[in-house]
Amino acid sequence: MHANIMFGSDNHAGVHPEILKAIAAANRGPAVAYGLDPFTNAAIEKFREHFGPAVDVYPVFNGTGANVISLSTLARPFQAVICSEHAHINADECGAPESAIGCKLLAVHTADGKLGVDDIGRQLQGRLDQHRVQPAVVSITQASELGTVYSVEEVKALADFCHQHELYLHMDGARLCNAAAHLDKGLGEISGGAGVDILSFGGTKNGLLLGEAVVCFRPELSQNTIFIRKQSMQLASKMRFISAQLTALLEGDLWLQNAAHANRMAQLLAKQVEEIPGLKIVQKVQANAVFVSLPRVAIDKLLKKYFFYLWNEEQNEVRWMCSFNTSEDDIAKFVVAIKESCQ
Amino acid sequence: MHANIMFGSDNHAGVHPEILKAIAAANRGPAVAYGLDPFTNAAIEKFREHFGPAVDVYPVFNGTGANVISLSTLARPFQAVICSEHAHINADECGAPESAIGCKLLAVHTADGKLGVDDIGRQLQGRLDQHRVQPAVVSITQASELGTVYSVEEVKALADFCHQHELYLHMDGARLCNAAAHLDKGLGEISGGAGVDILSFGGTKNGLLLGEAVVCFRPELSQNTIFIRKQSMQLASKMRFISAQLTALLEGDLWLQNAAHANRMAQLLAKQVEEIPGLKIVQKVQANAVFVSLPRVAIDKLLKKYFFYLWNEEQNEVRWMCSFNTSEDDIAKFVVAIKESCQ
Amino acid sequence: MHANIMFGSDNHAGVHPEILKAIAAANRGPAVAYGLDPFTNAAIEKFREHFGPAVDVYPVFNGTGANVISLSTLARPFQAVICSEHAHINADECGAPESAIGCKLLAVHTADGKLGVDDIGRQLQGRLDQHRVQPAVVSITQASELGTVYSVEEVKALADFCHQHELYLHMDGARLCNAAAHLDKGLGEISGGAGVDILSFGGTKNGLLLGEAVVCFRPELSQNTIFIRKQSMQLASKMRFISAQLTALLEGDLWLQNAAHANRMAQLLAKQVEEIPGLKIVQKVQANAVFVSLPRVAIDKLLKKYFFYLWNEEQNEVRWMCSFNTSEDDIAKFVVAIKESCQ
Amino acid sequence: MHANIMFGSDNHAGVHPEILKAIAAANRGPAVAYGLDPFTNAAIEKFREHFGPAVDVYPVFNGTGANVISLSTLARPFQAVICSEHAHINADECGAPESAIGCKLLAVHTADGKLGVDDIGRQLQGRLDQHRVQPAVVSITQASELGTVYSVEEVKALADFCHQHELYLHMDGARLCNAAAHLDKGLGEISGGAGVDILSFGGTKNGLLLGEAVVCFRPELSQNTIFIRKQSMQLASKMRFISAQLTALLEGDLWLQNAAHANRMAQLLAKQVEEIPGLKIVQKVQANAVFVSLPRVAIDKLLKKYFFYLWNEEQNEVRWMCSFNTSEDDIAKFVVAIKESCQ
Repeated sequence: MHANIMFGSDNHAGVHPEILKAIAAANRGPAVAYGLDPFTNAAIEKFREHFGPAVDVYPVFNGTGANVISLSTLARPFQAVICSEHAHINADECGAPESAIGCKLLAVHTADGKLGVDDIGRQLQGRLDQHRVQPAVVSITQASELGTVYSVEEVKALADFCHQHELYLHMDGARLCNAAAHLDKGLGEISGGAGVDILSFGGTKNGLLLGEAVVCFRPELSQNTIFIRKQSMQLASKMRFISAQLTALLEGDLWLQNAAHANRMAQLLAKQVEEIPGLKIVQKVQANAVFVSLPRVAIDKLLKKYFFYLWNEEQNEVRWMCSFNTSEDDIAKFVVAIKESCQ
Repeated sequence: MHANIMFGSDNHAGVHPEILKAIAAANRGPAVAYGLDPFTNAAIEKFREHFGPAVDVYPVFNGTGANVISLSTLARPFQAVICSEHAHINADECGAPESAIGCKLLAVHTADGKLGVDDIGRQLQGRLDQHRVQPAVVSITQASELGTVYSVEEVKALADFCHQHELYLHMDGARLCNAAAHLDKGLGEISGGAGVDILSFGGTKNGLLLGEAVVCFRPELSQNTIFIRKQSMQLASKMRFISAQLTALLEGDLWLQNAAHANRMAQLLAKQVEEIPGLKIVQKVQANAVFVSLPRVAIDKLLKKYFFYLWNEEQNEVRWMCSFNTSEDDIAKFVVAIKESCQ
Repeated sequence: MHANIMFGSDNHAGVHPEILKAIAAANRGPAVAYGLDPFTNAAIEKFREHFGPAVDVYPVFNGTGANVISLSTLARPFQAVICSEHAHINADECGAPESAIGCKLLAVHTADGKLGVDDIGRQLQGRLDQHRVQPAVVSITQASELGTVYSVEEVKALADFCHQHELYLHMDGARLCNAAAHLDKGLGEISGGAGVDILSFGGTKNGLLLGEAVVCFRPELSQNTIFIRKQSMQLASKMRFISAQLTALLEGDLWLQNAAHANRMAQLLAKQVEEIPGLKIVQKVQANAVFVSLPRVAIDKLLKKYFFYLWNEEQNEVRWMCSFNTSEDDIAKFVVAIKESCQ
Repeated sequence: MHANIMFGSDNHAGVHPEILKAIAAANRGPAVAYGLDPFTNAAIEKFREHFGPAVDVYPVFNGTGANVISLSTLARPFQAVICSEHAHINADECGAPESAIGCKLLAVHTADGKLGVDDIGRQLQGRLDQHRVQPAVVSITQASELGTVYSVEEVKALADFCHQHELYLHMDGARLCNAAAHLDKGLGEISGGAGVDILSFGGTKNGLLLGEAVVCFRPELSQNTIFIRKQSMQLASKMRFISAQLTALLEGDLWLQNAAHANRMAQLLAKQVEEIPGLKIVQKVQANAVFVSLPRVAIDKLLKKYFFYLWNEEQNEVRWMCSFNTSEDDIAKFVVAIKESCQ
């Protein structure tokens, strides 16, 4: 018997049926390649409804691509990007930012995956010193890699600090929809509206087959982004099939339904986990992740039935993820297995 | 009235219905992300049936990605890649190879898009001179960007020369299926079987929504390719949906049906074009492209009805592409329009 | 008996005695490292006397470093640099520009090493096409690698064209002093005065132990050049010893004496070579190089006595260089050896 | 009155008179450029006397260049270099390693600038995970940036651990001579003899005008280093003048005299500083650096007379460096000034 993988990652989920329908619907007749098609125009319009009429939008394949293109748009090789040590760009992209841009990441220790103004300030001491990389961008992840969510006020405070100190603010929004659902705010309100300069908008973890987008709130910054996208190997030839998915996600409220559901499942899981003796929830459950510490022996037992990531081996911390298609029944069965493993 | 774009590019075609079915079929339950899923295993097995039991296979998003990963696997920054001036890596990838690998392309003038042994030999004069980049890889495109096809003997001669001179042979097989259909040979026979070391296998232009693969015939060379793929931003999280397409293409003979049809349509078009006074076919029609020279005034008239690329403005040469879903009726209407434009 | 190497390269010459004196004179007491010393300030002032009061000056180690820093200042990875195929940046820097900047060089065939306006125009066809690298800089070499010299009018025409087409003009002035001596003009007049935006100023080939400088005529472009210099590994710690050499070269007329002498020796050599039957001077002798075609058998004989570069093996063309310390006697002996080799 | 800068850096010192003599002596007649000259051959032989008969030696301009070439020789972009957070490659090279190699530095917190085996072990958890950069090299600095010195046993333990875990060991020996003088061992004994694979040998801080060398103890690793050196812009044309300095340093015992003197002066300074109330020496004084904490008001007073670096502003820690030409009298005067500043 193979382990059940569904709590391992929100990437383990499949495609939402509405998204598959949108792909099929886009498969009618020829369409110009590389983004000059009506489906992509429609997707861009949909983004503008959510993020503001002036945003520049670049559909791409995946999150690493969206992040690298965003950062390449804003930083040059002698500059640096300040981020959390847990940031996907720092920990999970096999050095793509350093390799593609040539710049250094200044990774800061964070307890909850969220950067504060002080964390940034401490990285600015080498300004104007020719021996030091020059910080140019701050990158935050919303929701963070630890399942926590920045409030709108927190993002605004970071954005204000950045703009006062000649820094751009990038948001890795691989789970932006989950953050918006948690905050009960609009997608634009918690990103560009709060001062973010450029956004990696995530679709894949929220029910798409594949598809993300770079959204630039200051189009004067992104005049070269079309070239950066191509050079970064992220220009889809049959782009209509990415764009049609993004449109389906953003028109109506599919983005919110999917994300809110995943968040709710995480809350449900967390609530039941809290009551199990020996388990401790170690991060605020604000998006679709539950970080828990439990005895190593329980972890090992549980891993025989369910696959998930041992996030911090020294601390016996694990990560359980919910997705748009996690069901209450899935949670119930999982909780049973957790309890069995703790005996 | 908008121009008809269907002869503009084989990327303008949509997705073959069988491929869409395969995607839908793969959308059942969770699957581990990043390639460790049964759909990807099945695709790899299917590749091994065609290309040999020992090949290493890395599904990726697009052709530029496949090319850059292939070349990164084989070349370091102080080395160089010898290719035709018309090569996609040289002319159409916005400098991705130079940017991602840091190496130089030594682009050679070719009349028909095909490299010969002599072309390579001339680039080896700087060997061991510390001021010169050191050629390490030869890259050929099969079918070439000009619609021509290397015979198996030609590939073998290049491979032998390369291996005698400590060079690797890369094949950009964005249209490998079209070449195989033209040669009436197997996919493996015209690539690894003829001495190619690493291949970019193309699916998108042959009916896929999106999906290519790096196929390495000498697995001792590709031990780091999984890291290169991730760092090159080409690792799909929900990889099963790319893999399922590749499997659908390679099992049965869909790859051949699609490619052979496109080639036949190109032959049909070429045959009728030849008979039109003032038009001249300027490259052998061996795959799915027809390169034609015709009076500028005719080009301009035709462009009002049909969109296509003016390949060489000085020579009044244009490129017309056929695809898996071009019909005889499409050809007939296009020929009428060509004739009208020539009057 | 070893071959005499003195006509092999102007890099084979040693250091002018005045330069050694300047180094020794700078060796008094401590001086702040990395360019904040009085010797570097003095050198910068000396550059401003020659090149204009507003220029930004960055002393560096070598010519490849100066070129890469200049181009990094002006180009980003998705952009391109248009240059002659013979350009040092294209042929003799082991791919340093591609590797360091990530950008593509668009190398143009030139008969005499000099770019013309038409050569540039032809490279601009891919402008705004996202699949193509975007030309941003034109790089010319003064004097060229083939010993020819651009007139001030030629440089002005190129600069005007560049600036009309949103291109910057870089001059590789590894032998700028030889060009100025030939033209009988000032160093600034033939570079920034003629419209050049950024210059690699060469000292090493003109009598320095080692030392070049990046000179930027539009300081608004070079605000990040101090960081680029450091990241490019070209920031000298004990910079005073490079700066003192540059000052010694540029104050008084040592730069001109050295360069004019080398040019005169080349003229002397050329004049005598012209009279030898079977020899043909194949490039205009305007700086300190003499390019000659002669029978292969004569080349081989001569190479036993004198080391020099076989520039073009197919054409039996060789390059003979003169330097600041070539003497009339050296020429006389060399001519005897040439004549003997031709018998 | 300007501040006295002599304790600011060992780079503030000038050139040892013997070195200047060696430069002048090398200025006789022409010599082949780019390292194929007898002076460079002699320097390489001198290195082989110290470091072993099989070492490969590459003279270069500066320490950043030596480090980047060493690491480029051993690491590819998807790999990583483990180092101390204080490492020059991490803190003081403006991101040159990331930019030139494309790889990530995994910088580890160290109290005394020295890495231990455990520090390395903790960085290996992501091995074989395609989302993580793959550690390939460990880089240590001898003497460290904090003035501490690894014992031979410590280097051996690191080397053994590295080689057991498929890691190479690089030593940044910008102050290797100071470390050898402290340990009273040979230069080879404390580097290659202790298991180091590749070394950046430093000359500039020990009395040279400019000149370092990459020394590879496993020549099978450095077969491409000549190309990497050129592409890294570190190939000197008139290399004889760097090589002659290196020879002068390494023949006889000038390297030891200079380094031992600098170390002695640091000891003398430390001894006197210890006796001043309110001052605390915060790192072991083993090479030529003295790290001291003292009240901020005293620092500010002292900075009016002497320029030096405020190493850690939060901790009020400063760095005072001695060099080959610091005199006992210089120390005495400096101590007076320190005492005055503390009143």
